[in-house]
Amino acid sequence: MPYVYAFDHKHRRPPMELKDRLGGKGANLAEMTSVLGLPVPPGFTITTDACRAYRAGGWPDGLDGEIERHLARLEKAMGRRLGDPDDPLLVSVRSGAKFSMPGMMDTVLDLGLNDESVEGLAAATDDERFAWDSYRRFVGLYGRIVLGVDGDRFEAPLEAGKERLGIEADADIPPDELRSLVADAKQVIEEVAGHPFPQDPRVQLRGAIEAVFGSWDAPRARAYRRREHIPDDLGTAVNVQAMVFGNRDDESGTGVGFTRDPATGLKGEYGDFLLNAQGEDVVAGIRTTEPLSGLRARFPAVHRELLDIFARLEHHYRDMCDTEFTIERGKLWMLQTRVGKRTGAAALKMAVDMTRDLKISRDEALLRITGDHVEQVLHPQLHGGGDRIVAKGLAASPGAAVGKAVFSAEAAVEAAGRGDKVVLVRNETSPEDVHGMQVAEGVLTARGGLVSHAAVVARGWGIPAVVGVEAMHIEGTSFTVDDVTVEEGDVISIDGTTGAVVLGAAELTQPEPPAELDTILRWADTARKGRLGVRANADNGEDAAHARRFGAEGIGLCRTEHMFLREDRLPVVRRMILASGEDGERAALEELGRVQEEDFVEVLEAMDGLPVTVRLLDPPLHEFLPSTEELALKEARGERLTGEEQALFAAAREWEEDNPMIGTRGVRLGVLKPGLYAMQARALVRAAIRRVEAGGKPIVEIMIPLTVTRPELVLARSWVEDAVEGALAEAEAGAGSGSGSGAGVRRRLRIAIGTMIETPRAALCADELAEAADFFSFGTNDLTQLTFGFSRDDVEGRLMEAYLAEGLLARNPFETLDAAGVGQLVHLAATRGRRARPDLKLGVCGEHGGDPESVQLFLEAGLDYVSCSPYRVPVARLAAGQAAVRAGAPRH
Amino acid sequence: MPYVYAFDHKHRRPPMELKDRLGGKGANLAEMTSVLGLPVPPGFTITTDACRAYRAGGWPDGLDGEIERHLARLEKAMGRRLGDPDDPLLVSVRSGAKFSMPGMMDTVLDLGLNDESVEGLAAATDDERFAWDSYRRFVGLYGRIVLGVDGDRFEAPLEAGKERLGIEADADIPPDELRSLVADAKQVIEEVAGHPFPQDPRVQLRGAIEAVFGSWDAPRARAYRRREHIPDDLGTAVNVQAMVFGNRDDESGTGVGFTRDPATGLKGEYGDFLLNAQGEDVVAGIRTTEPLSGLRARFPAVHRELLDIFARLEHHYRDMCDTEFTIERGKLWMLQTRVGKRTGAAALKMAVDMTRDLKISRDEALLRITGDHVEQVLHPQLHGGGDRIVAKGLAASPGAAVGKAVFSAEAAVEAAGRGDKVVLVRNETSPEDVHGMQVAEGVLTARGGLVSHAAVVARGWGIPAVVGVEAMHIEGTSFTVDDVTVEEGDVISIDGTTGAVVLGAAELTQPEPPAELDTILRWADTARKGRLGVRANADNGEDAAHARRFGAEGIGLCRTEHMFLREDRLPVVRRMILASGEDGERAALEELGRVQEEDFVEVLEAMDGLPVTVRLLDPPLHEFLPSTEELALKEARGERLTGEEQALFAAAREWEEDNPMIGTRGVRLGVLKPGLYAMQARALVRAAIRRVEAGGKPIVEIMIPLTVTRPELVLARSWVEDAVEGALAEAEAGAGSGSGSGAGVRRRLRIAIGTMIETPRAALCADELAEAADFFSFGTNDLTQLTFGFSRDDVEGRLMEAYLAEGLLARNPFETLDAAGVGQLVHLAATRGRRARPDLKLGVCGEHGGDPESVQLFLEAGLDYVSCSPYRVPVARLAAGQAAVRAGAPRH
Repeated sequence: MPYVYAFDHKHRRPPMELKDRLGGKGANLAEMTSVLGLPVPPGFTITTDACRAYRAGGWPDGLDGEIERHLARLEKAMGRRLGDPDDPLLVSVRSGAKFSMPGMMDTVLDLGLNDESVEGLAAATDDERFAWDSYRRFVGLYGRIVLGVDGDRFEAPLEAGKERLGIEADADIPPDELRSLVADAKQVIEEVAGHPFPQDPRVQLRGAIEAVFGSWDAPRARAYRRREHIPDDLGTAVNVQAMVFGNRDDESGTGVGFTRDPATGLKGEYGDFLLNAQGEDVVAGIRTTEPLSGLRARFPAVHRELLDIFARLEHHYRDMCDTEFTIERGKLWMLQTRVGKRTGAAALKMAVDMTRDLKISRDEALLRITGDHVEQVLHPQLHGGGDRIVAKGLAASPGAAVGKAVFSAEAAVEAAGRGDKVVLVRNETSPEDVHGMQVAEGVLTARGGLVSHAAVVARGWGIPAVVGVEAMHIEGTSFTVDDVTVEEGDVISIDGTTGAVVLGAAELTQPEPPAELDTILRWADTARKGRLGVRANADNGEDAAHARRFGAEGIGLCRTEHMFLREDRLPVVRRMILASGEDGERAALEELGRVQEEDFVEVLEAMDGLPVTVRLLDPPLHEFLPSTEELALKEARGERLTGEEQALFAAAREWEEDNPMIGTRGVRLGVLKPGLYAMQARALVRAAIRRVEAGGKPIVEIMIPLTVTRPELVLARSWVEDAVEGALAEAEAGAGSGSGSGAGVRRRLRIAIGTMIETPRAALCADELAEAADFFSFGTNDLTQLTFGFSRDDVEGRLMEAYLAEGLLARNPFETLDAAGVGQLVHLAATRGRRARPDLKLGVCGEHGGDPESVQLFLEAGLDYVSCSPYRVPVARLAAGQAAVRAGAPRH
Repeated sequence: MPYVYAFDHKHRRPPMELKDRLGGKGANLAEMTSVLGLPVPPGFTITTDACRAYRAGGWPDGLDGEIERHLARLEKAMGRRLGDPDDPLLVSVRSGAKFSMPGMMDTVLDLGLNDESVEGLAAATDDERFAWDSYRRFVGLYGRIVLGVDGDRFEAPLEAGKERLGIEADADIPPDELRSLVADAKQVIEEVAGHPFPQDPRVQLRGAIEAVFGSWDAPRARAYRRREHIPDDLGTAVNVQAMVFGNRDDESGTGVGFTRDPATGLKGEYGDFLLNAQGEDVVAGIRTTEPLSGLRARFPAVHRELLDIFARLEHHYRDMCDTEFTIERGKLWMLQTRVGKRTGAAALKMAVDMTRDLKISRDEALLRITGDHVEQVLHPQLHGGGDRIVAKGLAASPGAAVGKAVFSAEAAVEAAGRGDKVVLVRNETSPEDVHGMQVAEGVLTARGGLVSHAAVVARGWGIPAVVGVEAMHIEGTSFTVDDVTVEEGDVISIDGTTGAVVLGAAELTQPEPPAELDTILRWADTARKGRLGVRANADNGEDAAHARRFGAEGIGLCRTEHMFLREDRLPVVRRMILASGEDGERAALEELGRVQEEDFVEVLEAMDGLPVTVRLLDPPLHEFLPSTEELALKEARGERLTGEEQALFAAAREWEEDNPMIGTRGVRLGVLKPGLYAMQARALVRAAIRRVEAGGKPIVEIMIPLTVTRPELVLARSWVEDAVEGALAEAEAGAGSGSGSGAGVRRRLRIAIGTMIETPRAALCADELAEAADFFSFGTNDLTQLTFGFSRDDVEGRLMEAYLAEGLLARNPFETLDAAGVGQLVHLAATRGRRARPDLKLGVCGEHGGDPESVQLFLEAGLDYVSCSPYRVPVARLAAGQAAVRAGAPRH
């Protein structure tokens, strides 16, 4: 296989399909040249194969010969020779990997200039200043990129010269000064590199190609690939292309153009243009650009040609393209094109529009939307303010918020009472902060990971949150980051989509979701129909109603502990824990049962006619007790503990655990305090009966958490069944003496009993569990924690970053399900569970339910639904629809 | 299938093989009657099938008819009828389950007596007192067992009557008093049961049989089965047998006999005998029994007959039997026999002896020894003292200890310095207590589970330990349990085999292991040869030497953290953690490296020629830092922290974790502090090189802990390989300038690099890991914790007890490997690992390596060796040998 292909090479397959060898830029150049016949400056592409060979064993055999042959062909086509002292050919050397890595890798322009050819260029163009300015730029670029000289060594003399001469613009520097700058630059190169600046254009070219190959392994490129999940072993292609000059004269110019507006998706060309300039001048932003439409008056023919090209590109690529072009002495040259990046709103509009005007299919339209696009149009975003970012934390709950910093829940409530918007700032939050979180615009914590209390509660309520800002130090009612201090009442902004913390009030974009969002989501719903449902995790009626508005088809996880944590209920929960006798415990449980029943009625009403999966109490009891450390400190400080505090202290000590995540939680708690689950089940069934009596259609699924053995599930099931029977008998007795409508309740009540699959053992023994379960719900957060032995709160900061940076993990397994390990368990449990019980309903609740790649895996494993936080439901609907499209027709 | 079989029924298979239907007692009675033709009072067995049918659906159809037919046959054989007013047949009704449950279930004697037949019995035996005493006993027994009357209601009047009459022995109570006692007892029964004492013997019989069936489900029987892992659904058989009377006259008597001495295993009969008495009198221990040899003088013919029967029983059962017999008017009757229980010493001696005198095979001899037998002869045991047991905790490290209670490590060192024997009592231990543990006879803690610091360290050193004594409250230098207080200096005794804590100095049996232990272990070694090796977990030269003496074939786990925890090293470890710059860290690591090298030299020397698996640092760093809580309390109390304390406090806060068990441990620590593993590997390789230079044969296996992905292992492997290469180069350079012997070091050094399999993900991805590993070692403790989501320290007390008591778990999975869940992962990892790398060496380190059932699973999964604590090595050798015998020829 050759290492080098000319842009006009007739490939057997469309060049677009050869991106892995030609790179994105090379493939597009070939596409434009050989397929579309557009005016592209000629050139050739050195493939990624060559880069890989180079990385493995140095400069590949035979590559020199191939380059020489293509160079000869290029010289012939252009009628100029590289290094020709009279009229030299100049080339650009650019990287181009399979996946776009903007700004990550190196480019060398104007290659071919040397002390002789610069004079030829000056003569040929009759423009000494242009020629010497080009040479100055080339020497600097080459020195920096190929020879590793610090760019300041070239910039500083340039600035000094301009100051000395009283000049502002580079274009005004006289030729003599340019000559002197070139001489200085060559001097610097010789000093730093230990050898003179190479005059031989072949040596220049080889150097530039090697530099591009090498830039693949530069730290910033590696870091970018890690972030974007691009494999490290792909390598980059190199494009060598004849230079054209937009800075030749006033009949020349350069610009970037989009075939539609990438911000709004509106049809019609869009872009910027700069007269008598090179591409870097556009990017540098020193001179004010003109809109593309300005071309119409100045170069009507070029403008027509460009619009024609745009139309051909759109029809060819069947998508919006962005382009770079240059006009040299009135002639249009296309330098680059690719499918353009776009905002969420634009993506949605274009996808829908293009089903009509470019005839893409609905499936194709669907696959062009990402979860980020949907998030963008749903959540407020910080707009600008980038320069005032003082710290970054974990993006825990999407959306942006602006408000006065407050440092306690009480302060939040007080300030909110006065009508102030506040951002609650805490080291970490606990149940005692919940009333403050409820009134805050956003939450900011110094500690904790993406499943910390703050993160989970905020996501559940759709409150923007940034957590784990390790650089932030809170002292009393202020925090400092480096040398910046924020006092209580100072305004700050946070962006829970990016993790940014900004000083002052940043501007927010508060979006109105475009109509196209609905269209796309409807298409997604059609695609996933009968394949994968989407439910929401919601703990109360309000959240359930939100979720339903976002299109949730039920609740996959209703956590009952959040009901326990409300300020007015915590004392009752504590009374239950502290109760010494059975009577006291029963009385406290009865009281809790009464309030839970009301909560359940609200949730069931909001989700009437749709399934609601309620998880019985899951967290360890000490989460409902005060911190032992705080009480111990209080005591040590000589403060007296009240009698109640002493009792709570003793209970907290008793229930304290070394590793609470894998301690006495879930059904284990149920085994130690059997009255608890019976109470919860009874409250739920009573609530359902009330809904039936009110004419509703409650569909209840009761879920036992953290099961590891079948006898556990059988036992827990028996409590629930007893509670169901008891509540029904109670209702029937009540109805018998009253309205007489109670007889039908039993018939109309639909209650399923199932379990979470969240330990490896539950997955491995799924067949046994399925015999006692109507449904499984995969708790993939805990399953991931246990499969890896990763305590999420502990590893998700420093350690996870190191693991991702060093490539020890390809993805954060808490964001994208680990297919090799955890995914095996999901597949295995689904298969074994269904083998034991073919009608077993399978779902997943947890963060992965909203992650597209994970959703794909869940669909392939045969799950019936995913469940995620209400605000993530649209993303999950999209992802589920895409997964169904990608998976093709179901296997049966 | 019939529900009832006579003892003389000719079964198609030997009755011994029908234990699951006839129960143990019924099978043995049938064996003696129908096979051996011994003098057994006739009777019949109602099978366990009947019990199961009864438990499922009440009294089985047809059972009455069968019982009636067998009763008629029994009456015919005995020439007497049940309830005959002139000469009644009396029967006993006894339970008899498949597995012996001594004292757990019910027995009714003398059934058939009523107001009429008692007079017949008196007339027929010409002994009114005997007849009425029998009736009194029967009414009481029947009332208590069948009708549920409190036994005190019968005992109290008996005692009152004796006092009134001035009588001591029951046998002296005159007939009139007995008549009156019977009348009173019948009165009590009518009052409590609501109906009169049944006079109809058929009703009596049915009641007794139902009572025996019912006793299967009595709480104490259930509890016993849980403890002994006997399934709940087996049910019991019922044996109905003609009564014979050892209390008839002075030509009568009763006794128990063993065919050999069950305490020592010495040959020759052994037992007790009581003239003119019934079985219960022997058990009651009121009258002093005579040794069995006393029979020779008194009943020479009976004695000869008994010895003849003993010999026949031993040859028939091919084992030592225990028996119950009765002599009625000079005639010998065998009431029961079974293979007898024995002490460890006796078991060993008999097993070896019987290969000669009973021709049992060595395999059979091997299978008769249990791990407890071996432990018994190896560790001191508490002897007596049962009445002074004040508390029970977890049996954490076997053996017993007596000493003065001390409450701090310092006090332990001081007292030991004075020559006192001490037991160290702590809430829990930490690295700072280690020097106190080293000098203590035993360790006692109020908190912590079987893998707590105290437990692990004590087992490693063979120090007896009882941990997690929740009833114990320590205050300063005393502890209280209920109303008992133990002050510093008071003598206490602990038994780490049973978990008992005893006040005062209990008597200890300090065993000298019998010669037969060696014999048995050699046979075990032969059986397991080439199948399953046994290594030890040892962290220093002394432990390694111990282990080798116990027969360890290498070290399966050398934990390097214990080296870090020694008092003189902790400061250096802390310096390493606190080091702000790389230089400081490197200097501290160098210093640690030097001491580790010395440690490794000692271990390698002790295990010269055998493999030593060294695990690189595993625990989280905060284990080496002081408790944050203690420092915070110190601060809160207004005490000033020193500068060093402040720095340690900050570091401890930084490294503190919510769930340290699944936090930054093992190779994760290596990733964050790469110099650490490099240092350890270098120290180990340098030590190995020194051993080679000294003429030794070190075989080194370096083990990476907690690996979850292949890139992790590849990275860690590269550090180790670099360290190996560096140390070798260093040695060769040194040798080159010196002795010249260094050249051969590289050739003679054997270093393998492998990983622990201790997370579910590692097991699931074993094929990937195997590509970068020379060996796997299953860390089944952590694997169990993660598969179940059980933090051992948190669940092993209250929760595990509840789970075992309620049958939610059949076994504690930390003692016996959970075959259904964790076992699946072990099998899967072994299979996938070997598929990827056929020469992969597989071992297991952790508590399960010494558990017989688990060892069986490991052998079947194809593991190469198990590793356990040094003092458990003999048990593991036995278990491995037994596993090999049970598994039969290897499958290839």
